[in-house]
Amino acid sequence: MTEHPFDRAVRLDAVDAETFRGATDPAWANMVGPFGGITAAVLLRAVESHPDRIGDPLALTVNFAAPIADGEFDISLRAARTNRSNQHWMLELRQGGEVKTTATALFGLHRDTWADDETHPPSVPAPEDVARGTFVDAIVWANRYDMRFAEGPVPLRAVEPSTSSTTTLWVRDVEGRAVDFAALACLSDVFFPRAFLRRGKFLPAGTISLTTYFHADQREIDALGSDYLLASAHANRFSRGYFDQSAHLWSRTGQLLASTHQLVYFKD
Amino acid sequence: MTEHPFDRAVRLDAVDAETFRGATDPAWANMVGPFGGITAAVLLRAVESHPDRIGDPLALTVNFAAPIADGEFDISLRAARTNRSNQHWMLELRQGGEVKTTATALFGLHRDTWADDETHPPSVPAPEDVARGTFVDAIVWANRYDMRFAEGPVPLRAVEPSTSSTTTLWVRDVEGRAVDFAALACLSDVFFPRAFLRRGKFLPAGTISLTTYFHADQREIDALGSDYLLASAHANRFSRGYFDQSAHLWSRTGQLLASTHQLVYFKD
Repeated sequence: MTEHPFDRAVRLDAVDAETFRGATDPAWANMVGPFGGITAAVLLRAVESHPDRIGDPLALTVNFAAPIADGEFDISLRAARTNRSNQHWMLELRQGGEVKTTATALFGLHRDTWADDETHPPSVPAPEDVARGTFVDAIVWANRYDMRFAEGPVPLRAVEPSTSSTTTLWVRDVEGRAVDFAALACLSDVFFPRAFLRRGKFLPAGTISLTTYFHADQREIDALGSDYLLASAHANRFSRGYFDQSAHLWSRTGQLLASTHQLVYFKD
Repeated sequence: MTEHPFDRAVRLDAVDAETFRGATDPAWANMVGPFGGITAAVLLRAVESHPDRIGDPLALTVNFAAPIADGEFDISLRAARTNRSNQHWMLELRQGGEVKTTATALFGLHRDTWADDETHPPSVPAPEDVARGTFVDAIVWANRYDMRFAEGPVPLRAVEPSTSSTTTLWVRDVEGRAVDFAALACLSDVFFPRAFLRRGKFLPAGTISLTTYFHADQREIDALGSDYLLASAHANRFSRGYFDQSAHLWSRTGQLLASTHQLVYFKD
């Protein structure tokens, strides 16, 4: 059986107790280097693969310091602190000794408490009632997903600038791979740069820091299967070369699975 | 002249090229250890104080791994990567060799681009028309601020649970110290735990990871003086021991200065 491209891209070999080796995968190529989401996923997978890891992913911050070149990379990681119910990890991804990505990850145990979803999914048609959308041909990784834009699709041709930076889409793995935490980390970066919508055109832009909070526990993740998730993103401010994006990912049944935020550089 | 308590709390002495030494300050005490905001501020100040630093703060993630004890602490920091226009820092705060806090910081240069504020401040009365609020006596650091709650004040007595976790307040330094980047980092953690509002009572809760995006550049910061900022926070989901908070800080004139997010543990 051929390995699924996602599993292939996050596959790691242990080099020593604090180092895993992985490699970029052509299926996840972006304009320059690999898709940021797959880098977030492989960093999360590194912690998940570590024998000392306790609990589920709670928070992940990934800093995209420099483009990752095609080929092998080493991820060094260590638990800076292990408490009774949570654990703080620090990670660096290097190629040829050069730091390309830094990250921190927080893992921890869940326990029963009062619970409530306060941020509800936007009201949109079911994925079966939205046409499958297209990304840009040059963006190879986008072919890994079935994306159905309910609001704010990619401006494939130059269009009027929108007054809103909001994109809402249904998204799932194109081959029907089930969602796990690493796949959720990957999907947290599934949105194209918000500046494209506000300017009605493509322009140079790239994520420089990405933070994802995981609300779902393992049981909730396991219940997702390969169904569509609803994903919605908006920007808060565009200012002097940078903008921030806040986004949410829900299950089809309306549970908030992750809140995810990022800072993006742009030129215009 | 007596040093302002904020400046005293973020004062650092260089130990070597990669280490600064600071100390907790009783004026910023929280229930257990110092206020998370002042820890974020002193970490940001460490990068600002480093001779290799370039540009303004763009993003800061602080992971509160363990309570900081009263007394001295060492902050070790290094630029994991320096690019032409930005710089990625990794930091650790230690006491007696134990890691208490980890952080990453992104600094960078600003350049002129298209700009727009998309997230606008909520409509509230001017700070002069809102009564000064009170926090809890045991929370010493809260006395450092003049806080005026327009929405969602601290539930000082047990009250009915609210259906909304939103708090909106005007806030400024009680002695009129002007805002700088470190003060803005501090204010990004000025909100009490959102669970208090939703449950109508106090309960055990604490920030475990805090990420702040700085939209303002130095010129915009300098223009703020010591005027009130408008701060508004809400939670997205409470689930099995954790919730996330998203918040924004605006100038009185409505410019979004910072977007800030955190993951909080709670028991209930």
